[in-house]
Amino acid sequence: MNLILLSPEEIENNRLARVSDPRRLRHLREVHRARPGDRLTLGLLGGGIGQGELIGLDAEAATFALEPLDQPPPPALPVHLALALPRPRMLARTLEHATALGAKAITLLHTRRVEKSYWMSPELDAAKIHQHLVLGLEQARDTVLPEVTLARGFRPFVEDVLPGLLETRRGLLAHPGMANACPRDIEAPTLLLVGPEGGFIPWEVEKLLEAGCEGIHLGPRILRVETAVTALLARLF
Amino acid sequence: MNLILLSPEEIENNRLARVSDPRRLRHLREVHRARPGDRLTLGLLGGGIGQGELIGLDAEAATFALEPLDQPPPPALPVHLALALPRPRMLARTLEHATALGAKAITLLHTRRVEKSYWMSPELDAAKIHQHLVLGLEQARDTVLPEVTLARGFRPFVEDVLPGLLETRRGLLAHPGMANACPRDIEAPTLLLVGPEGGFIPWEVEKLLEAGCEGIHLGPRILRVETAVTALLARLF
Repeated sequence: MNLILLSPEEIENNRLARVSDPRRLRHLREVHRARPGDRLTLGLLGGGIGQGELIGLDAEAATFALEPLDQPPPPALPVHLALALPRPRMLARTLEHATALGAKAITLLHTRRVEKSYWMSPELDAAKIHQHLVLGLEQARDTVLPEVTLARGFRPFVEDVLPGLLETRRGLLAHPGMANACPRDIEAPTLLLVGPEGGFIPWEVEKLLEAGCEGIHLGPRILRVETAVTALLARLF
Repeated sequence: MNLILLSPEEIENNRLARVSDPRRLRHLREVHRARPGDRLTLGLLGGGIGQGELIGLDAEAATFALEPLDQPPPPALPVHLALALPRPRMLARTLEHATALGAKAITLLHTRRVEKSYWMSPELDAAKIHQHLVLGLEQARDTVLPEVTLARGFRPFVEDVLPGLLETRRGLLAHPGMANACPRDIEAPTLLLVGPEGGFIPWEVEKLLEAGCEGIHLGPRILRVETAVTALLARLF
């Protein structure tokens, strides 16, 4: 927690912030070992970042005297990540990594090799997803939540959603064995598609290429989804 | 498990391989849903890679008829990773990521902000470390184990080990706030130093820069160690 992310209702008169949930209180106490007088970094969800002085910490709440939250959050990545829904634990970590790296649009996509049971996982509850996004923001000192959408059908995604996404974005399909190596240091708005463990099936690859995506690869090594997503984002941007 | 990694004693006459440990048998059965007649990718620890046909699978063992293991493993990264010892669960995942990405030399380093208790963790047992390295190799279809060394003192590392490492390597110190952005697509042999959560302390940064390392950063976002290691390796190489 490198930033204490405040929701508007945790701030009074722009001057005082009061955090009372057990998770952050425990973190302040056990990891930060915070004491009154300590200055910490705080940010308003969707807003600016600044410093605050801890003026009270008890079992119920931590209270901060806020300085202006007038610093902008770090720049976002110009990426829309379309990720075949990973298994639940991998999903949690991948959301945290992608959020910490600055992705602001994430579509979780069904593909043939996504196990149907993954769509029933409690990890897909909006509240659970929100929690992992917040962990990513707190880690990276960011305040702007990514938007996560679910695409429960591959064909409707390709036919109804993908063309619109590609109107303003370069589509990159990350898949082992594609012709071109992952490009580096691009600045263009990008749609990055990442398959499930086991990969996209050939028909899916064909559909995505037909729709105008370029196939890219990360070399001969097969990476876990969470490693691949981080490696792709770090290499592309 | 994209490759079944065989130790020499699991191979008979270069023709038959027999796998009998519960972890791989369960994986073959539950994830691969393997049946006799299936062809799978196998590799010899430290050696080549090839195909084999599953000719028997029962509660005790999986038996493969081997074709020649004559394909080379994927290229290694020209990196020696010196990593401040992360907390145990993070260590496990970071070893897997770094191994899957192709790192072949990893030093786990003590620094001021490494909690001393981490050095007592069972995750540091040679057998546990070996297990995570094997998982990384199996993931990436590699056969060559990284060498992991422990440096339990920062000063002895800097004074006695670092000069030798830097004789033939470019030293890069990844630390927030350093002057230069992480370079991209370098090919030179590199020593990459990554600090603990909370970072290197200023005195440690000074010692590493004095020793000839260049300070690099990944931008304003503070990343978890496992995310940072993957991002750095993907961007550097």
